[in-house]
Amino acid sequence: MASKVSPLAPTGFPALPAIEGVRIGTAEAGIRYKNRTDVLLMAFDPGTSVAGVFTRSRCPSAPVEWCRSVLPGGMARALVVNSGNANAFTGAKGREAVALTARIAANALDCGEGEIFLASTGVIGEPLDASKFEGVLDRLAGELAPDRWEAAARAIMTTDTFPKGAVRRADLGGTEVTIVGIAKGAGMIAPDMATMLSFVATDAEIAPEALQALLARGTEKSFNCMTVDGDTSTSDTLIAFATGAAAKRGAPAITDAADSRLGAFAEALDDLLIDLAQQVAKDGEGATKFVTVDVAGATSDEDAKRIALSIANSPLVKTAVAGEDANWGRVVMAVGKAGVPADRDRLSIWFGDIRVAVEGARDKTYDEGKVSAYMKGQNINIRTELGLGTGAARVWTCDFTHDYISINADYRS
Amino acid sequence: MASKVSPLAPTGFPALPAIEGVRIGTAEAGIRYKNRTDVLLMAFDPGTSVAGVFTRSRCPSAPVEWCRSVLPGGMARALVVNSGNANAFTGAKGREAVALTARIAANALDCGEGEIFLASTGVIGEPLDASKFEGVLDRLAGELAPDRWEAAARAIMTTDTFPKGAVRRADLGGTEVTIVGIAKGAGMIAPDMATMLSFVATDAEIAPEALQALLARGTEKSFNCMTVDGDTSTSDTLIAFATGAAAKRGAPAITDAADSRLGAFAEALDDLLIDLAQQVAKDGEGATKFVTVDVAGATSDEDAKRIALSIANSPLVKTAVAGEDANWGRVVMAVGKAGVPADRDRLSIWFGDIRVAVEGARDKTYDEGKVSAYMKGQNINIRTELGLGTGAARVWTCDFTHDYISINADYRS
Repeated sequence: MASKVSPLAPTGFPALPAIEGVRIGTAEAGIRYKNRTDVLLMAFDPGTSVAGVFTRSRCPSAPVEWCRSVLPGGMARALVVNSGNANAFTGAKGREAVALTARIAANALDCGEGEIFLASTGVIGEPLDASKFEGVLDRLAGELAPDRWEAAARAIMTTDTFPKGAVRRADLGGTEVTIVGIAKGAGMIAPDMATMLSFVATDAEIAPEALQALLARGTEKSFNCMTVDGDTSTSDTLIAFATGAAAKRGAPAITDAADSRLGAFAEALDDLLIDLAQQVAKDGEGATKFVTVDVAGATSDEDAKRIALSIANSPLVKTAVAGEDANWGRVVMAVGKAGVPADRDRLSIWFGDIRVAVEGARDKTYDEGKVSAYMKGQNINIRTELGLGTGAARVWTCDFTHDYISINADYRS
Repeated sequence: MASKVSPLAPTGFPALPAIEGVRIGTAEAGIRYKNRTDVLLMAFDPGTSVAGVFTRSRCPSAPVEWCRSVLPGGMARALVVNSGNANAFTGAKGREAVALTARIAANALDCGEGEIFLASTGVIGEPLDASKFEGVLDRLAGELAPDRWEAAARAIMTTDTFPKGAVRRADLGGTEVTIVGIAKGAGMIAPDMATMLSFVATDAEIAPEALQALLARGTEKSFNCMTVDGDTSTSDTLIAFATGAAAKRGAPAITDAADSRLGAFAEALDDLLIDLAQQVAKDGEGATKFVTVDVAGATSDEDAKRIALSIANSPLVKTAVAGEDANWGRVVMAVGKAGVPADRDRLSIWFGDIRVAVEGARDKTYDEGKVSAYMKGQNINIRTELGLGTGAARVWTCDFTHDYISINADYRS
């Protein structure tokens, strides 16, 4: 297992303020890990609205199915997350485990089970013994505190090498509101430690439908533009909670995602989600370089994104970046295989600001030394211009190193 | 670079007989490699029909475009292949290089340029100096011999660790005909050494359209069921040549792929293509295990193949196999992400004959020791039953090891 911290990690965990209406507790329930926290309980004041975006896997985890079933209620009183066991592909036992967890949490917080949201991350296929939550959630419910974001971010880590958090502030109808988010994932997509979880809380008052629309839109621009290995998890979960506490300070109650007063808030939410998504890519298993892939000139934004993901998911492009090799031939390959319109003879490719290929051939000014020097940096930008239309996309990923193999060939043993 | 031979290599190159109407020569043209052959000239007697299947990349190499342009003629007099330079993404220069190569070969063999087939494999984006073929092809044309299949297979190697060849014999209308094939590729798909090339010759007399139909059908069951890293080459090329020499011995001239006399021949061709495809997977970059993925019970054969390729291309499944870890949770993940119908609760998974998961959960009889012992073998079978319909597919791949990273992170340097 990789215990060393990613070289791409931020210098420290950001100072995350309390969100009024949110209280946090973490504990050691001994699910799988020893001597570290593995349970997170987040409690919300009555009136907190909720929105969620989940994995598109056809084999989703039991907690994902639970969240989908209670999400239409639109209100949340608690979030329970455990690390070490994903409760995925656990059949009827998995369904019993989520039902029991929700019951324990609802008892502890004196609310309805339909207001409890659940997420699990860790090994697939091992039954989760939810009875371990029995005393733990009760005790936690009595010890909750508002400013424990870092502890929360740490309790949900699996192969992550650093805790991930972000904060943004925005003006909402003349009142400042705050958005805080945490995430885990070392690999968008590393299903054994299944996998990408992110939780966002704000004191803004936003109705469930509006919050859902904002979250779905933001996800497209952030987590859905990030990849580590192209392997989609059974457990990907992003949930946003809006406590509405800022309404007491004069913030308007928002019921429509098209409300013009949402401009700054939506921008801040998108920016926070992008920040968290980039932190996940920077903690990609074995990552030593952070890669931004830009595609322009495609026939549509959708085609551009397919090409960008084809480049960002290519093992050959990612191993070349790991080897500090400006191997643009592999970028050509990845463009060619994406299955959407591309014209080799109009294609241009840049590494950083250095154009290496233009109009279907190597750039005449190509200077191996110059581009090799660029590849030694920690942040690599690969840009392609297709020359076909105005479609554009940006995707983030990391390089593909020996440590990815070590982490994933040896994980269960 | 990996210079050691793949542990999955056959014990030796098979004894491949001459095909009447085919003569072979190889030479050192100094394209990129030193002290090894890098040019193959294969000459065919007049009347040889030809069929070809090429990469679906939108950025194909110049030789692929050349072959596509001359294929409608249906007849071949020569094949020229070089290793070390793929002549891909070389723009106008690339087109000039293939035209010059065809002209040199046509002069050397006194035939039309439209009867010359070309393939190149090696680095992408470097201009190919076709003038190097000038004296070489002339000289080779005078030295051709019929029984040089191993030399041919060696001349087209790039990162391959062993030469690949196969032979099959079949009854065709009461006369025995022979099919010989060679292939290269260390990675279906490793575009710098771009990449999968295979050439097949038979003495059967089969008209171009019929040969094309047989080849396309066979490709679907063989090369298109094999993957190393999911990265589609700019240069994938499979060409079949039928000299018709067996007609002198009484074999019928076939003009229709639906001809009932083709049964044994078509079966032998499919079998030979599968043999060559498996050899390519067994020489996958860094491969230590050969993996067969079977999917049954899908809603259609097409859906089954998408799921099988999703499993076979998953870096997490492949690293688990490398680590001798029966990590069926990753198989669940790969089924879930394939984007075609799957029902978690009907899914069963086997490693070899050991059922590890059934109906959406771990098998009650699951025995880690037993399955771990199985995973230590060199040939790993991963089988899934979806329980939805009768669609089935089989795909071959290899595991994903540190050597893949080493080979591809360091290739150009």
